[in-house]
Amino acid sequence: MSQSTLEFALANRIQGLDTSAIRKAFELAASLKDPINLSIGQPHFPCPENIIEAGVSALRKGKTAYTLTAGIPELKEALVEKYKKENSIPYANPDRILITSGVSSAFLLLFNALLNEGDECLVVTPHFLMYPAYIKIYGGKMHTVNENFGAQDLAAFQNKKLKIIIFSSPSNPTGKILSKEQLTLLADLAEKTGAYLISDEIYEKFDYDKKFVSVGSFYERAITLSGFSKTYSMTGLRLSSILAPAPITKTLTTLQQYTIVCAPSVTQWMGIEALKTDMSSYIADYREKRDFVYENLKDHYEIQKSQGAFYFFFKIAEKDEDFVVRAVKEKGLILVPGYIFNESKNFIRISFASEWENLKRGIQALKELSGKGA
Amino acid sequence: MSQSTLEFALANRIQGLDTSAIRKAFELAASLKDPINLSIGQPHFPCPENIIEAGVSALRKGKTAYTLTAGIPELKEALVEKYKKENSIPYANPDRILITSGVSSAFLLLFNALLNEGDECLVVTPHFLMYPAYIKIYGGKMHTVNENFGAQDLAAFQNKKLKIIIFSSPSNPTGKILSKEQLTLLADLAEKTGAYLISDEIYEKFDYDKKFVSVGSFYERAITLSGFSKTYSMTGLRLSSILAPAPITKTLTTLQQYTIVCAPSVTQWMGIEALKTDMSSYIADYREKRDFVYENLKDHYEIQKSQGAFYFFFKIAEKDEDFVVRAVKEKGLILVPGYIFNESKNFIRISFASEWENLKRGIQALKELSGKGA
Repeated sequence: MSQSTLEFALANRIQGLDTSAIRKAFELAASLKDPINLSIGQPHFPCPENIIEAGVSALRKGKTAYTLTAGIPELKEALVEKYKKENSIPYANPDRILITSGVSSAFLLLFNALLNEGDECLVVTPHFLMYPAYIKIYGGKMHTVNENFGAQDLAAFQNKKLKIIIFSSPSNPTGKILSKEQLTLLADLAEKTGAYLISDEIYEKFDYDKKFVSVGSFYERAITLSGFSKTYSMTGLRLSSILAPAPITKTLTTLQQYTIVCAPSVTQWMGIEALKTDMSSYIADYREKRDFVYENLKDHYEIQKSQGAFYFFFKIAEKDEDFVVRAVKEKGLILVPGYIFNESKNFIRISFASEWENLKRGIQALKELSGKGA
Repeated sequence: MSQSTLEFALANRIQGLDTSAIRKAFELAASLKDPINLSIGQPHFPCPENIIEAGVSALRKGKTAYTLTAGIPELKEALVEKYKKENSIPYANPDRILITSGVSSAFLLLFNALLNEGDECLVVTPHFLMYPAYIKIYGGKMHTVNENFGAQDLAAFQNKKLKIIIFSSPSNPTGKILSKEQLTLLADLAEKTGAYLISDEIYEKFDYDKKFVSVGSFYERAITLSGFSKTYSMTGLRLSSILAPAPITKTLTTLQQYTIVCAPSVTQWMGIEALKTDMSSYIADYREKRDFVYENLKDHYEIQKSQGAFYFFFKIAEKDEDFVVRAVKEKGLILVPGYIFNESKNFIRISFASEWENLKRGIQALKELSGKGA
């Protein structure tokens, strides 16, 4: 066996890409005895049995080969119906749809296909941590605007040449749902600046007060990202869809051929069954948990009631990383520090995607950590 | 609904990325009545039942959540054993292994993580079509050396600063298996030039004359790519592994967190069962088919006996695209033109991953197309 003395040289684009603090917390959980975990970014309930059995059936029918690059036609047709009925997107059709391997793969395809080095992007913040990572990987420049923006906050960008505007609504990490007025402002800005408007709607069903609107319902050039992972608790099965103008979908499909190849075949068959599945009882359970968290923490922290997803994002008196370490040491409580979602270091994110017992213990621990009594 | 009049601007890196001729052929097959198809890049046999049932069991146990980024520990352990026993790689350990979503995803991670714009790459040719695509996407410069190279053919590269040397053995499209002497020359060149040596071993089990050697068995800095897709006929289920020096594996794992997230969870559990499955009867069937193709075509075409994978790559008298069109029109025969695998336009690739009947009809059609009588 020859021994190499060479260094390991990496590409510039990934230098400094950090291991996600969320996954760190996730892996830390494994080392604690009986931890309380409020860091989890996926539903606590199991994937419904009818969806599981659709997977069993697909496996036993031998659906293990490559599918068409853009996805199986049966799932595309089911998605057209979903987009029309549930998202009020009248122009949805199979040529606009690309089925891919989770929303992360959708980001990969989009940023890879659209962003040139030096291109400017606008991110609604606090934001999902992957957006800045992708902008960095593909050499873009990132601007941010707070999620509570109005017309005046966007004025500074009107004369810029933006390439991408991206947001999640309902938001990870805040649970904020952008209003139709805000979405209209973003669509107008996209038109004015030539930007692609990317709407990450992975949490669309976690909409506790019926406020969610798809920007694609009134802006045909929007790029809509929809996931199966969170809604149906199948995060590990890797399935999502992109609805975009047909020329973009075609380009992304070509790129998918060289990268993702196709979304997992069996998962695609499960997706058809998923779209028939009523998840409202699961959402009602999370609404109750949302209310519980708010009622219990509102006197201890400066906290807004989350509107969607399954997170609260709120201010703490100390530095986020210190607070996270103290929470683990004093309470065995696992949290996610806010710095990965915004520029302030005084926030934490908690998830209420949890069993009641864990959630109650976690909220009690947070009360005790607040210094305002339990 | 507002109507946008904006153009769709794409990133430079993907301009001119063409739709794969293989997939075109695959999609053309659907439009022909009773076609003969010798274009298919995946096994014709079904995924073995024990592997299917491992998937059923994983689904019913609810294995639908995210796994650890680098893959489930149980599969990593099984892969360590595989690398040690089947590939004679003594240093294999879990820290060197990243489980990802098909070998295409492995390329994505590697080229993204390693290649800077302008970096030079050496590709052993004829080559898998994704290698030049990735070099293009990430701005590299490609050199080639023919697969029958000896020391003198590599001399020109000794003083270059190469970043990546990549090859597939057994080869797609030629079936060539690189000898230990050739692998040693490549490892020496990698050391001399500072290049990463990437060994794409997705066809390792399709080794008809027991000639296959993993370069990783004697060169610890090699990056070994192993797939489940072809060996176990699960191309649509997206599973592969990368064995690399630990610092590289760590970097790729971080990048995977932002891109692939994890390989499909259920497929990972199927992978453990796959590694226990004896595929030798399937390989024996393909050996017989390999011999049949060679015996029947050797008097009609200038053809070398394929050593592995499930392809023959050989010269034709006319331009490849013309020949492919003529084959479809005259015989309903689907082939893959050679230009996507090398610089000559006088080759075609045929696949013998096929039922006997289709294969016999295809070989008969090729005899008739040769102009040398049937």
